[in-house]
Amino acid sequence: MAFKVGLLGLGTVGSGTAAILLDPAQRHPLLKELKIHRVGVRSLDKARAVDLPVEQLTTDLESIVTDPEVDVVVEVMGGLEPARSLMLKAIAHGKHVVTANKAAIARYGDEIFTAANAAGVYVLIEAAVAGGIPVIEPLKQSLCANRIQAVTGIVNGTTNYILSRMQSEGSDFNEVLADAQRLGYAEADPTADVDGLDAADKVAILASLAFGGRIKLPEVHCEGIRSVSAADIAYAEKLGFVIKLLATAKRDAVGEDEAEQLQVRVHPTLVPKSHPLASVNGVYNAILIEGDPVGQVMFFGPGAGSGPTASAVVADILNIAAILKVGRDTVVQPDGKPLLDPLLACSHQHYSKITPIDELVTRFYARVLTQDSPGVIGKLGTCFGNHEVSLESVVQTGLRDDSAEIVVITHYVREGNFREALAEIQSMESVQSIASVLRVL
Amino acid sequence: MAFKVGLLGLGTVGSGTAAILLDPAQRHPLLKELKIHRVGVRSLDKARAVDLPVEQLTTDLESIVTDPEVDVVVEVMGGLEPARSLMLKAIAHGKHVVTANKAAIARYGDEIFTAANAAGVYVLIEAAVAGGIPVIEPLKQSLCANRIQAVTGIVNGTTNYILSRMQSEGSDFNEVLADAQRLGYAEADPTADVDGLDAADKVAILASLAFGGRIKLPEVHCEGIRSVSAADIAYAEKLGFVIKLLATAKRDAVGEDEAEQLQVRVHPTLVPKSHPLASVNGVYNAILIEGDPVGQVMFFGPGAGSGPTASAVVADILNIAAILKVGRDTVVQPDGKPLLDPLLACSHQHYSKITPIDELVTRFYARVLTQDSPGVIGKLGTCFGNHEVSLESVVQTGLRDDSAEIVVITHYVREGNFREALAEIQSMESVQSIASVLRVL
Repeated sequence: MAFKVGLLGLGTVGSGTAAILLDPAQRHPLLKELKIHRVGVRSLDKARAVDLPVEQLTTDLESIVTDPEVDVVVEVMGGLEPARSLMLKAIAHGKHVVTANKAAIARYGDEIFTAANAAGVYVLIEAAVAGGIPVIEPLKQSLCANRIQAVTGIVNGTTNYILSRMQSEGSDFNEVLADAQRLGYAEADPTADVDGLDAADKVAILASLAFGGRIKLPEVHCEGIRSVSAADIAYAEKLGFVIKLLATAKRDAVGEDEAEQLQVRVHPTLVPKSHPLASVNGVYNAILIEGDPVGQVMFFGPGAGSGPTASAVVADILNIAAILKVGRDTVVQPDGKPLLDPLLACSHQHYSKITPIDELVTRFYARVLTQDSPGVIGKLGTCFGNHEVSLESVVQTGLRDDSAEIVVITHYVREGNFREALAEIQSMESVQSIASVLRVL
Repeated sequence: MAFKVGLLGLGTVGSGTAAILLDPAQRHPLLKELKIHRVGVRSLDKARAVDLPVEQLTTDLESIVTDPEVDVVVEVMGGLEPARSLMLKAIAHGKHVVTANKAAIARYGDEIFTAANAAGVYVLIEAAVAGGIPVIEPLKQSLCANRIQAVTGIVNGTTNYILSRMQSEGSDFNEVLADAQRLGYAEADPTADVDGLDAADKVAILASLAFGGRIKLPEVHCEGIRSVSAADIAYAEKLGFVIKLLATAKRDAVGEDEAEQLQVRVHPTLVPKSHPLASVNGVYNAILIEGDPVGQVMFFGPGAGSGPTASAVVADILNIAAILKVGRDTVVQPDGKPLLDPLLACSHQHYSKITPIDELVTRFYARVLTQDSPGVIGKLGTCFGNHEVSLESVVQTGLRDDSAEIVVITHYVREGNFREALAEIQSMESVQSIASVLRVL
């Protein structure tokens, strides 16, 4: 019995996937039953990292997703189109789909999973979040008995690499970014990474799995790390924190209408040094899941790269092969469609309500440049107090370019109140500028 | 459609399991389809942490495993017998089994899984290792594309708690053990924990899953933490290490007969402070899995306790319910037996070959008490050299009770050679005693 894989894309992840499929020794015995049937590429002439018979390659990707012999379509080409259309066509042709495409799933998950459910096929996405770290399947299966309270992660290796180096070297963002680009840790156009968009895609997917409702990507609040300065990292360090780009999905306090709400957001965050995520450095990813009754569990590992991502892709292919092997797809419902495993398939269809950012209750760090005159701290404190912003600490650490620098950390406050206070502070005569505002875990 | 659960045991884990089953809100919707059918207890009169109708309780455990209405038998009573016999009887009656019983699985796994395969039922064991941390399912499913090279874990919370406190307080083993017993972190009879037996059960199970061969428990080399002294922890600290009780399962270099061999062992180990396992403190567990091509992934969380362990138990029940729901158990082979999912069932039947401890190649730490005379270090070094033991560092740190204390860390050496050198050193006139010998990661 052989299960035939149609591979769309033979780049970094595609080559890694093919390399595993071609070398099954000492892996799960089921791997021996997988066969690469066709591989869709952009050009037939390019030199490849893996050795595949030339007749398996084709530039006609549509012929793969419609090929009656293909059991599983593996989409590792990336990008929104034609990836989305090819996945939908594969589903329409009764193929199971495995994809590493976080961007397409975060945007078109609704359309893709609805189509998959209608066709009675699986769309598995372990590789779409945190590369080789098992987190999708644990959320779907191993932790499915829990009432998940929060998922908090470092899910973008590039920004974690940059922040880790800024931390260890005291360097500024632009300097480290340039070096990261030179070394291949950041893309020539770093926008998706450093502006938090890649992390937003991933947290939307995680939130959807953790809380069983779909997420509208534009509702995910997203700030990147361009505004994080060496000065902020140094102050954070002194106060017992490191700065990380965190992706957070959290069950919020029930709103006024008693409907459940979620916080889903990406932003640089001051993380206490004793927190498990604080020591995750370099290109590594980690995801902390909090649930009742499990408590806190954390998953750590390589969040990108050919091998790790391919590990997740092939695991998903094997999971589908196991289903096919047992012949579960031949068990049909009265309407003739195969029954789907309720833990593996995507069963939710409603959209989760997201707490508007103004109503978010969180802690803040702010660095304010002021005139070096007595009474400024008092004025700031009074202004925050008037807006019901309670402060945990206020530190004036000395002069920088003839300005006094005051660093404030708040207790939990409503974002709207904090922003109102900041606006008022900004307009004070003795205040030169609000140099930075960050959130605190 | 309701799936009926027969629960054997209503202690810590059993109560936690029942508590989840009785409160499905905001958990996976499939949970609403699980019903507690019968609960087997030792006494009907005991006060219980969960509120169950009295008619569900019975002291006749056998009536549960033979009850035609029960779909899944959940064994959370612990101990070897009658747990083993009840699981076998449940399997013989066509029940799927979920168990948290590491001791029974490590000893009778062969018998239990063979019976399950013959009967066409699943035996799921997520809760048997590392409590609430998903590690069994990730090894079976999410990481199944990898060639696993090593699994290294802190899998016993009691010993990690004791070692963490010895580390932070500078206290001695017996002192911390007594306090841990007073606080409920260690049992009145601490043998299974502090002598490493509990960790040995768990690493045998992990090795079996990671490398696809059964493990004979008596072949697992096992040393506990009784011999770890405050002095060793202090020296380790100075040299850049912390001491942890590590459970290790590792694919060994191929032996002379070219058969694959495994190292499977439990012992206190000097772990470099920069290693991901070094910062896992207190009762927490963590498991580091190294595979090709995933690299290193680590799972961290609560390794014991009612809630976390119940989280794993109920996840396994839900996984079985998902299979039953889809009706996969009605797909039969030509011989009439249900087909089992090759990733979820235990398919291996051979026993793995274990490298004898004498042939193990590892690094050592030794603390030697000698006369305070010149030339002793030279004698030690020469003796080690004669036995082909290469040293990484030799430190003489001063006097203790009129003896000089010499701490040695070796490069990788064959255990047999190291032991021969030690025997010779022990007999030297200038050597008073070999105070401790530990391994180094």
